[in-house]
Amino acid sequence: MQATTLLARPVRRLDGEAKVRGIARYTDDLHLPGLLHARLVTSPYAHARIIRIDTSAARAIPGVVAVFTGHDLLPVGPEPAERARHLLARDKALYAGQPVAVVIADSPYAAADAASLVTVEYEVLPAVTDPLRAMRPDAPAIRPKELEGEWAEAGMHATVAGGQELDVRRLPANVTNAVRFQRGAVEQGFAQSDVIIERTYRTPFVHQAYIEPHASVAIPRPDGGVAIHTTTQGMFYCRNVTATTLGLPHELVTIVPMEVGGGFGGKTVLLEPLVAAVALRLGRPVKLTLTRTEEFLLATPAPAAIFELRGGLRRDGTLTALQARVVFDSGAYPGAPVNIALLLLGGTYRWEHLDLVGYEVLTNKPGTGAYRAPGVPQATFAVEQLVDELAQAIGMDPLELRLRNAARAGDPQPNGVPWPPIGLFQVLERVRDHPLWENRQRVPNEGWGIAVGGWPGGIEPCAANVRLNHDGTFTVTLGAIDITGTHTVLAMIAAEVLGQPLERVRIALLPSDAAPYAGMSGGSKITYTVGLAVKAAAEEARRQLLEIAANELEVAPEDLEVVEGAIRVRGVPNRQMTLQQIAALSMAFGGRYAPVYGTGRVAVTQQSPGFNAQIAHVRVDPETGQVELLDLVAIQDVGRALHPALVEGQVHGGAAQGVGWALHEAMRWDESGQPLNPTFLDYDLPKASQLPSLQVELVEVPSPIGPFGAKGVGEPPVTPTAAAIANAIADATGLRFTELPILPEQVCAALTGLKRQ
Amino acid sequence: MQATTLLARPVRRLDGEAKVRGIARYTDDLHLPGLLHARLVTSPYAHARIIRIDTSAARAIPGVVAVFTGHDLLPVGPEPAERARHLLARDKALYAGQPVAVVIADSPYAAADAASLVTVEYEVLPAVTDPLRAMRPDAPAIRPKELEGEWAEAGMHATVAGGQELDVRRLPANVTNAVRFQRGAVEQGFAQSDVIIERTYRTPFVHQAYIEPHASVAIPRPDGGVAIHTTTQGMFYCRNVTATTLGLPHELVTIVPMEVGGGFGGKTVLLEPLVAAVALRLGRPVKLTLTRTEEFLLATPAPAAIFELRGGLRRDGTLTALQARVVFDSGAYPGAPVNIALLLLGGTYRWEHLDLVGYEVLTNKPGTGAYRAPGVPQATFAVEQLVDELAQAIGMDPLELRLRNAARAGDPQPNGVPWPPIGLFQVLERVRDHPLWENRQRVPNEGWGIAVGGWPGGIEPCAANVRLNHDGTFTVTLGAIDITGTHTVLAMIAAEVLGQPLERVRIALLPSDAAPYAGMSGGSKITYTVGLAVKAAAEEARRQLLEIAANELEVAPEDLEVVEGAIRVRGVPNRQMTLQQIAALSMAFGGRYAPVYGTGRVAVTQQSPGFNAQIAHVRVDPETGQVELLDLVAIQDVGRALHPALVEGQVHGGAAQGVGWALHEAMRWDESGQPLNPTFLDYDLPKASQLPSLQVELVEVPSPIGPFGAKGVGEPPVTPTAAAIANAIADATGLRFTELPILPEQVCAALTGLKRQ
Repeated sequence: MQATTLLARPVRRLDGEAKVRGIARYTDDLHLPGLLHARLVTSPYAHARIIRIDTSAARAIPGVVAVFTGHDLLPVGPEPAERARHLLARDKALYAGQPVAVVIADSPYAAADAASLVTVEYEVLPAVTDPLRAMRPDAPAIRPKELEGEWAEAGMHATVAGGQELDVRRLPANVTNAVRFQRGAVEQGFAQSDVIIERTYRTPFVHQAYIEPHASVAIPRPDGGVAIHTTTQGMFYCRNVTATTLGLPHELVTIVPMEVGGGFGGKTVLLEPLVAAVALRLGRPVKLTLTRTEEFLLATPAPAAIFELRGGLRRDGTLTALQARVVFDSGAYPGAPVNIALLLLGGTYRWEHLDLVGYEVLTNKPGTGAYRAPGVPQATFAVEQLVDELAQAIGMDPLELRLRNAARAGDPQPNGVPWPPIGLFQVLERVRDHPLWENRQRVPNEGWGIAVGGWPGGIEPCAANVRLNHDGTFTVTLGAIDITGTHTVLAMIAAEVLGQPLERVRIALLPSDAAPYAGMSGGSKITYTVGLAVKAAAEEARRQLLEIAANELEVAPEDLEVVEGAIRVRGVPNRQMTLQQIAALSMAFGGRYAPVYGTGRVAVTQQSPGFNAQIAHVRVDPETGQVELLDLVAIQDVGRALHPALVEGQVHGGAAQGVGWALHEAMRWDESGQPLNPTFLDYDLPKASQLPSLQVELVEVPSPIGPFGAKGVGEPPVTPTAAAIANAIADATGLRFTELPILPEQVCAALTGLKRQ
Repeated sequence: MQATTLLARPVRRLDGEAKVRGIARYTDDLHLPGLLHARLVTSPYAHARIIRIDTSAARAIPGVVAVFTGHDLLPVGPEPAERARHLLARDKALYAGQPVAVVIADSPYAAADAASLVTVEYEVLPAVTDPLRAMRPDAPAIRPKELEGEWAEAGMHATVAGGQELDVRRLPANVTNAVRFQRGAVEQGFAQSDVIIERTYRTPFVHQAYIEPHASVAIPRPDGGVAIHTTTQGMFYCRNVTATTLGLPHELVTIVPMEVGGGFGGKTVLLEPLVAAVALRLGRPVKLTLTRTEEFLLATPAPAAIFELRGGLRRDGTLTALQARVVFDSGAYPGAPVNIALLLLGGTYRWEHLDLVGYEVLTNKPGTGAYRAPGVPQATFAVEQLVDELAQAIGMDPLELRLRNAARAGDPQPNGVPWPPIGLFQVLERVRDHPLWENRQRVPNEGWGIAVGGWPGGIEPCAANVRLNHDGTFTVTLGAIDITGTHTVLAMIAAEVLGQPLERVRIALLPSDAAPYAGMSGGSKITYTVGLAVKAAAEEARRQLLEIAANELEVAPEDLEVVEGAIRVRGVPNRQMTLQQIAALSMAFGGRYAPVYGTGRVAVTQQSPGFNAQIAHVRVDPETGQVELLDLVAIQDVGRALHPALVEGQVHGGAAQGVGWALHEAMRWDESGQPLNPTFLDYDLPKASQLPSLQVELVEVPSPIGPFGAKGVGEPPVTPTAAAIANAIADATGLRFTELPILPEQVCAALTGLKRQ
């Protein structure tokens, strides 16, 4: 490797200019001759039998081409359990906002007008909205249990081995998953404890709140297949689900990935099977773009959760036992991240004894899905407050307790698998040395809190190619979608290996029918895994370049060095071959050498978890209960920051979303399952002005596996924010808030209650 | 390799169904919102100075968006020598039909109306249409000589090394290439000859006559680049020429290859730079589809040629000397296949002495280009009649003379390079044994003739990938365009290597910005070279499959066998892994194995020439001169016929085009350069009813290099047809016709002349 390096430099994002100039093309920007527009008709009831659907008035609107109901589009069969495979409700609506019909017209306006004229006769059924009530044996069953299928989506963001799967058939109807992790004997642990604290923590449904709504354009192909242009984080998964749902062979479904205007886990597969089914039925291209309200009604936000925790501690600072009963409110479809939540709940510290049970429960709410570190912001909010309170109870500094108990490489996770090398201890050490923590003091109404959260890191096999071009540039071809700037980092990796400036490397994202495999862009795994494939492909291309140059220059490959645009004999600057010359010898009529075309294939089997510790500094207004976040410091072990600005951007974004979890965001329904805030006017997404000036510190404990030491960075920063803020509020007020978001009215009420005591 | 094999079986063409059902999409089928339509304004004069162009009336037509002339689109600079880079005439029109302006409108009708209103004021210059006159030192210069550039296109269909390049600067203005091949001393050879024959042969401009006209749709990209959907045989070449012409970096030009509705060498790059320039200028998508007449006026047909030959023979049947002066009429642009014509002219037989000189001469006719075995039908028409006449002169059977002198492996070609193993002798032996030749007899007005022609075979480096899919199928990704069924053969090669039925293999042709490199589909090289890359990629994928299965089944890879859809332990039918299982382990979250993704890269450096011998049986009507082709037998060495029906289809198509060369086709101009037959009403393409029942015999002298022994097959069958028919006519009439096509009026006139003698 040459002395100069591209890595860790603030190069421009490859996608930046197009986005800044407004010329990046999103799915809704697509226009095609004969394009039809779809509009959904949704259920106004959270639980209702569909008696009759009258589409005649809708069909009479000029420009309307078709109206389809749940029985029209797919062959008769059991209703699928997966959200994306359940195109339209058939006999029963499971949540308010569920699509029950779709209107297709030659303009979006005609489609919208007609959708409002579809009359659906319902028999309203009692809705179950509280997960604890839904778990009762006498609760009405949301859906027949035999509908269980492969509910893999949320689980695809992290890999959890082990854990005891409980037999859900023996559990009440709405419990669709149950798992238990055990170590030692918790009762014995509690018996040996000096302090035991029991608390229940609650977190709400939180929306990913991407700027771009879901949008798909399906174009029938002459061969009976369909090409779907769509905003997705994972085209292969989207292809597989769509093909399976429609009963088509994979080769008849092509996903053409478009720009993703924010995903955060919420853009995998949602509308694609429906839009494809309609397009195939009509033989014409069809577009469906959700409205913002539809996003709130029927997309897949993060599930709500309840953590009933009991933790024990000895005076010497030993964490003895953690017992947990965790309930995830999964909405109308299975797929909640129970396993991963339990893993992080009990895995951050060396608890001597563990007994963690988690349940996934269905309710009459929209289906849920992945949202940045699925399950972990919830679990961290719970356990990091509990640990804080335990420290408080024995008068120990909360950081000291954490340092003393932090898991290290080799310590068992709740599933028994030992942690690989992790930087948890190192990020806590950096908290200790940080001025915001060091210099904290008693100031009336102010408080400082810390918390740490992590993410194990996704792993998935993948491949990539690196091609030399005629003009001496390189093209990386791959199947990994860029949602966070990863294409820039992948280009940097290739450029670094090839010893070329970044301008010489281009990324080509192929559609699903031709791309080298890559998993969905989620789980903080693209740089970690696809980065390795690109690195291997670039190394192979470099080897091929050197081989050709060595042959032509009649020297050994070892005597060559790579310089910008050329391969040169070391120490003989005028003996060289330009990359264009090599291209001409290998990509032209009668050429003597095979084209320079490297392929990298990798299957990483070991994760490199990333941890993020945060220090929150708040001021609580005793009159209004308003929490002002004065400072937020996020310290993250990123292995190696290949592009520090992008990595810091990830930490910024994650922490900002964490502030939303902490102080702002909650999707709410009334008891009958009516959504109360399905708009951005009512759903309180934090504004930029409400965010503190965030400080980011990167810690680099190199991964032995990731490219140049890199670890996944996208998910850890969202995990500890709410807990750190809650701990700071506790420090400021002496009050513990155990339910998210922590709103001024609750703080105010609690402070008032305190005063009254 | 398993016992059963796909090879040599008549499997269905992958592209057949879509073409038969009419659902294959050609470029002109593309419709886009905002698509503009281009129409050309062409010069009515073959040579004229452009004084003034008045576009005001054209611009006034409703719907007209722009009118561009030659000075509008590109930066000022010397006019390029290459046909495709010369967008529009600037100061001078070089041939009748040359585009001088382009009108862009929102409908094709408005564009056509407006094009007819563009007024061009010309100063007519003397046109030079006869190549021999054009070669005279006093002939008007068609274009300044310093315009010479890289005139590679036609040459890209075959590789010719050696030959003495003559210095064209010392030759008259319109001579743009001159080459000489020499061996021994011809005069000494003639001195030792018993017979010497001198003849001059002429062949005309012949059009490739593809069904689909040239069509391109250029779509500006938001990043300043352009995507060009086009009917091309070679996307990388098309990309390079277009980018160079427009002064764009390669990465800003993407060629999206569409179905090619016939090419035969005539579809490489023609309109793409012009359409792209217009689209980029206007920022809107633009389509240009040529009319049939424009195809005749301004596309790139095969050049005319004149062969002045002198051949010597001894009574023992030894071919002593061949002297040749060859002139190719290249039209207004350089690029005629002089070298390859000389190579085949003097390479088929073991002439003791050779002196071959070839000239490329410019005239005021359209530029010429590649047409199936460029240069060789012309050369073969000449030399195979000469050899026939020489045999006749010493009373030797013409086959006997050929067998005695046929070149074999190791014999030098005119450029001194020894022939690799070839099947020339073998195809001639098959002629000897063929009943049509064996049983020929004296029948009034009937005759039998033979001829043999060959093609050295193109070579070019290339790469391809083979990807395992989730459903257990495979996708071959490549950059080679299918003009002859090669995708089917490439899929067969992959299926054969992978031990799977053909239905499990799909071909994905990628656009130029992402495809593994492949040269243009021409030169009979796709199966020969890309076939090897696909084979290598499939072998690598197979190795990966076996590795995963061996690991999972805990056996050695050698103990495994490949069966349909699975990898199985030999002799233990129930111990197996399906391909879907392997896919699931290698392309899913947490998968343990890298995706199965094989890459093949090859650079073949040795050709495997193919030879085709034909026997023609004709009846000549003595009253009308009409030549009835009663039988045509084509015997071709194909190395190995991987798909015999497709190979036979190639021989059928080539021989049918040979019949066109022989008896029908010629583009004609009057002395002032006015085209005389630029329509299918006037240009006599043979109809199916005018073709004989063609018999094809395949000889398989395996190539040591090509996949499974295959050689290129597309080009040889067109080469000997005209010569074989001419020899048959000579056999029937005693008359030699030395100018193509051989038309009834000429035969009639000659027969009348004979009677009068």
